[in-house]
Amino acid sequence: MADDTFYMKQALAEAEKASARGEVPVGAVVVCQGRIIARAHNLTETLNDVTAHAEMQAITAAENALGAKYLNDCALYVTVEPCVMCAGAIAWAQLGKLVFGTEDEKRGYMRYAPAALHPKTEVVQGILKDECAGLMKEFFRRRR
Amino acid sequence: MADDTFYMKQALAEAEKASARGEVPVGAVVVCQGRIIARAHNLTETLNDVTAHAEMQAITAAENALGAKYLNDCALYVTVEPCVMCAGAIAWAQLGKLVFGTEDEKRGYMRYAPAALHPKTEVVQGILKDECAGLMKEFFRRRR
Repeated sequence: MADDTFYMKQALAEAEKASARGEVPVGAVVVCQGRIIARAHNLTETLNDVTAHAEMQAITAAENALGAKYLNDCALYVTVEPCVMCAGAIAWAQLGKLVFGTEDEKRGYMRYAPAALHPKTEVVQGILKDECAGLMKEFFRRRR
Repeated sequence: MADDTFYMKQALAEAEKASARGEVPVGAVVVCQGRIIARAHNLTETLNDVTAHAEMQAITAAENALGAKYLNDCALYVTVEPCVMCAGAIAWAQLGKLVFGTEDEKRGYMRYAPAALHPKTEVVQGILKDECAGLMKEFFRRRR
């Protein structure tokens, strides 16, 4: 739990980088045996690419770092509940653990694809929830 | 329909390239106003990247070609029913039309996330179904 909070803070720092670029503030890190092997934040606007979610980039980077397609021994920390696309990627990568901060009632995978994840993936939610949700609320309040 | 068959043949040619590399044979093209603006085939093994499905690469390439995040005026042709991840990406890109060849009963989005696509995306299935399915069957038969 202390570890989960520590790594979620790192994901939050990534989300803040997204926010500073005018991107929807979502950040992610991948942790493998106590080491952060990938950090990423949402870049969909910057890259004009809907696939450039924080989680997708973090998974690609982690697999590249390990030279392996599967991330069974890794945990993905992401500030917001993954969407259907990212949940699908998390499933293909067979992530050992998924930790997310705040729910996404509109676009989150739990609504559209509740069985999308690999059955062995442990899911923890609500870590630094208020901070993660606060970044999103502030971003959308400013855009209005 | 004649057009659908023509473009699916182009997707099949991509799938054959995947097969020749030892990749699960799935190919895709994106068509915008009668022009093919992106071609891609599955590269998950080559790149050690679970996100490198044909559809994902084709969407990224098409958005790059257009300099736009949305593909409302485009059609994606893919030889096999998209998985949950790819369906999520197709939804984010708001593709005007999705055409796929053969169903994927095990991993297809229709089973896990039937409501994942954007409501405005027209879906056509079964174009060159036997050819698309045949490539997959032949690939897995050889691997056994």
